[in-house]
Amino acid sequence: MTDVIMHNVTSADGFIADDHDDIGPLFDWYFNGEEPLSDDGSFRMTPQSADYVRSTWAAIGAMVIGRRLFDLMNGWDGRPPVGDHVVVVSHRPKPDGWHPEASYHFVDGVAEAVAQARHLAGDRAVSVASGEVGGQAFAAGLVNEVAMDVVPVVFGSGRRYFGSVTGQHRLEDPHVVIRGDRVLHLRYRVRRAG
Amino acid sequence: MTDVIMHNVTSADGFIADDHDDIGPLFDWYFNGEEPLSDDGSFRMTPQSADYVRSTWAAIGAMVIGRRLFDLMNGWDGRPPVGDHVVVVSHRPKPDGWHPEASYHFVDGVAEAVAQARHLAGDRAVSVASGEVGGQAFAAGLVNEVAMDVVPVVFGSGRRYFGSVTGQHRLEDPHVVIRGDRVLHLRYRVRRAG
Repeated sequence: MTDVIMHNVTSADGFIADDHDDIGPLFDWYFNGEEPLSDDGSFRMTPQSADYVRSTWAAIGAMVIGRRLFDLMNGWDGRPPVGDHVVVVSHRPKPDGWHPEASYHFVDGVAEAVAQARHLAGDRAVSVASGEVGGQAFAAGLVNEVAMDVVPVVFGSGRRYFGSVTGQHRLEDPHVVIRGDRVLHLRYRVRRAG
Repeated sequence: MTDVIMHNVTSADGFIADDHDDIGPLFDWYFNGEEPLSDDGSFRMTPQSADYVRSTWAAIGAMVIGRRLFDLMNGWDGRPPVGDHVVVVSHRPKPDGWHPEASYHFVDGVAEAVAQARHLAGDRAVSVASGEVGGQAFAAGLVNEVAMDVVPVVFGSGRRYFGSVTGQHRLEDPHVVIRGDRVLHLRYRVRRAG
């Protein structure tokens, strides 16, 4: 079965951005170390974070994101930050003429988006951005793993890592616990009923 | 300076109980191991959790709790679970005739409660139960450390670890990261503006 990994950076109280979509210091750890993540040198972090992020990203073939993130980032100008394909959950279609060369796909529902991303990813994993879209996928049982990069800051309010999920959902104990600088990398498998 | 440690067990999404004050599986790790926490054997956990909890509890002289917790537990029948003194933040006084022998003190405000607990604790630390009361103490800058026992479960809604705190508050990277069975013990110092 394809791994479907929900991921985001989060505050210690579970917010991925404040009420105005501002990430505050959540991404500081991407830029506070000596180790370049890749050849272009755009990210420099601690060796322990770089090792973790590199191996995680290398395993991912396609990512599912919400329209909000697409619009905020203008879809990274057609270059997926991770993997080779992006599936955007949106009621609105792809903007006319927007990077026709890029493998970006706009679909209406979360389940369909995850299915399409799994197809596109082939043997590799699917990443689902946490938040409203990720929370819907998680609640629907479409997520196998939860990856949280926990930053030591309290937000108080904002956009929640698990979106609007309701009811209790059990995870396994984290199989990844890596201490970085201004981040704690945690990764949990989702516990299946049974 | 007296250490004032905010503490609670929390879900991975930051809830210390559900909307009905039910803790669900949050306390399972207190009872799922071989190692008795103390002679009375009421808690049996993994050795790594027992070591951590024992040393943490031994350092605490007084605890501050809210009236909700006091009422839910009937004040542990006058026997503080940790330390020797309990300060209850409450607009209502101590119930008439309730365990007159016990060092339980009812005060009207969070700042006054923390001050009184520090006095009672002497050289030892003060524990503040997280939630509404703890969040108020944290927001007022009265808390030095944040101790979170993170259980791998998602609640979706309920009573929040940080209560109604607003605005961003930075913590240091966790100086304690201990993996138990159905719990991850984390402890952060509060970063002081400076």
